[in-house]
Amino acid sequence: MKKVAIIGAGNGGVCMGAYISLRGGKVNIYDKFPQALESLKENKGIELRGVSLNGFAEFDIISENIEDVIRDCQLIMVVTPAFAHRDIAKSCAEFLVDGQTIVLHPGRTGGALEFYKTVKDINPTVNVNIAEAQTLVYACRRTKPDQASIFGVKEKVSVAAIPSKDTKKVVHKLNEYYEQFVSAEDVLETSLLNIGAIFHPTPSILNVARMECKEDFEYYHQGITPSVGEILQKIDEERMKVANAFKVNTISTIEWLKQVYGVEGNTIYDSVKLNKAYSGIAAPKNSSTRYITEDVPMSLTPISELGKLVKVKTPVIDMIIRAASIIHNVDYRSTGRTMERMGISGMSSKEIKLYVRDPDIYNFKKLEERKVAL
Amino acid sequence: MKKVAIIGAGNGGVCMGAYISLRGGKVNIYDKFPQALESLKENKGIELRGVSLNGFAEFDIISENIEDVIRDCQLIMVVTPAFAHRDIAKSCAEFLVDGQTIVLHPGRTGGALEFYKTVKDINPTVNVNIAEAQTLVYACRRTKPDQASIFGVKEKVSVAAIPSKDTKKVVHKLNEYYEQFVSAEDVLETSLLNIGAIFHPTPSILNVARMECKEDFEYYHQGITPSVGEILQKIDEERMKVANAFKVNTISTIEWLKQVYGVEGNTIYDSVKLNKAYSGIAAPKNSSTRYITEDVPMSLTPISELGKLVKVKTPVIDMIIRAASIIHNVDYRSTGRTMERMGISGMSSKEIKLYVRDPDIYNFKKLEERKVAL
Repeated sequence: MKKVAIIGAGNGGVCMGAYISLRGGKVNIYDKFPQALESLKENKGIELRGVSLNGFAEFDIISENIEDVIRDCQLIMVVTPAFAHRDIAKSCAEFLVDGQTIVLHPGRTGGALEFYKTVKDINPTVNVNIAEAQTLVYACRRTKPDQASIFGVKEKVSVAAIPSKDTKKVVHKLNEYYEQFVSAEDVLETSLLNIGAIFHPTPSILNVARMECKEDFEYYHQGITPSVGEILQKIDEERMKVANAFKVNTISTIEWLKQVYGVEGNTIYDSVKLNKAYSGIAAPKNSSTRYITEDVPMSLTPISELGKLVKVKTPVIDMIIRAASIIHNVDYRSTGRTMERMGISGMSSKEIKLYVRDPDIYNFKKLEERKVAL
Repeated sequence: MKKVAIIGAGNGGVCMGAYISLRGGKVNIYDKFPQALESLKENKGIELRGVSLNGFAEFDIISENIEDVIRDCQLIMVVTPAFAHRDIAKSCAEFLVDGQTIVLHPGRTGGALEFYKTVKDINPTVNVNIAEAQTLVYACRRTKPDQASIFGVKEKVSVAAIPSKDTKKVVHKLNEYYEQFVSAEDVLETSLLNIGAIFHPTPSILNVARMECKEDFEYYHQGITPSVGEILQKIDEERMKVANAFKVNTISTIEWLKQVYGVEGNTIYDSVKLNKAYSGIAAPKNSSTRYITEDVPMSLTPISELGKLVKVKTPVIDMIIRAASIIHNVDYRSTGRTMERMGISGMSSKEIKLYVRDPDIYNFKKLEERKVAL
């Protein structure tokens, strides 16, 4: 039986783990918070419900020790907030062995790059694939400590690996459990088709007073009004300009909503309004929501940083980074995914394209260049 | 009997007109919208109620013809949104005569400067004082077409004239009806103590979805939450930095709230929460509120423009200008009060200080300089 490690026992993690277990995989699960694992340990698994498989899913190793959880696992699924990626990379780097594949669900922007750099800094010779999914395949919730529910499964989710020449291999591994995963060209494509960057921080900022009043309202259908939609549109344009400057395939958020949810509007506001899948999604009740703490530093900051490199101005993205930084009294530009943190500082856009295709070839070429220069 | 012209038959205009009439002034009133004057014409005045004087106040000339309204009036009170100031200046410029005094209630930022420039462009030799109040002296409402109510009267409102050497004279004229008016050093002081610039645009932007959902909520007490307060604090700091760079006396919004309302908080959020005078003030029900359409171009834009001249960066103010511009699809930077529009383009900060003290002396000096240069 193939072994799969799940990193993160939150909504996405337990659902993915339970599903893979019910599909016949041997699943280990890790979380750094013991309380997230408590009932899983008690029951040796979790009850899965919803639109996917139903039944009690057994887990094998359930532990706060990441070394134990990832040992002998071909596939390591990281299903945590993106701001945890670097720490997870640090804590598992020395235990990784050749041939393992890590997939971030999702990477947000620059997740795989950051994970790869962090692992390689600690364990330079290990031969692993670090991949990222463009979005979480599920709409799901860990409804109770001992129960998880899948409300929806996306039809198609793109994935890319570093090195991207290995993406097909990674997708093949994933397809054993999920036929939804398809290959993207490279991690720049998955990172720049980060729709969370559009839908998470800006509506949160523009509804911050309402959230702080602990008002009940629907995040999408009441939080994204025509004016909010106008700003999302500008941010989406900036994101696409950055993608285009990197010669990366991308689609607009309107097109993404059409492909994923089948809704066809002329504006983001219209498409959101038409999207019944967004009905009933409650807005956060305070300003320290992950929609800001995760998606500003791990999505907007790296998009803005990538934009700078290719001389694409991102004033509206920068405006949201600034507002979030003031609200939380955190400099989300410096604490976010900078070029340095993604391991691509000092590279040109062409070099980055080469690097994500094959870091070894990139490094070899750089070494050669240096030799010539000497 | 002294004649006073009121320009604008909205909340502030009818209350001010009615009060002056009850104090024994002969009051003319103008509005460009006939429907605003309809019931005033029918009744030849308006019923005034509230914390100030009570009774039926007669108006003399009630007209959409500004020439008729301002004729023979020593004092012309302009009580309109700031975005109307330039048009009013244009329409009355040729009818102004020496010795008249125009007071903008309030000028927002650069109101008197803009009015002065506009009048002088059309009628260069007329000798008038153009003054601006720092805020509207009243909290009031035209409760019905034939009734106006004053809920509160501010204890002290500063006023400055162009030329500022005539401020005392203007304050003396105003004191005949209102002892509340006191002299500011110059119009830079009144313009940079524009508290509407703090309280109007930003909470509106950060509650825009709520407003577009037509939600009932209190503008100040529910719209200004801790996070909104943090951003207001930054904007207030930027405003004060600009004022300091112009060597203009100013106070923080916290201090202003203390002086005007007697509330003492450590943060803007705290002070607003403590201020009972803000209780029950309903938020606008759509995004095309004057809080944005007036206070972005007539307050934030000129503060930002003045900041540029003295090399004070105003990134948070600029962020709000940008957000408002996207929401309304209007470039509030170019449609707002630019240096050009305020008549101070190309001047140094020292020259501006000299100009507001006495434009004639400034112009004379400039002429002399040019002669020397030739």
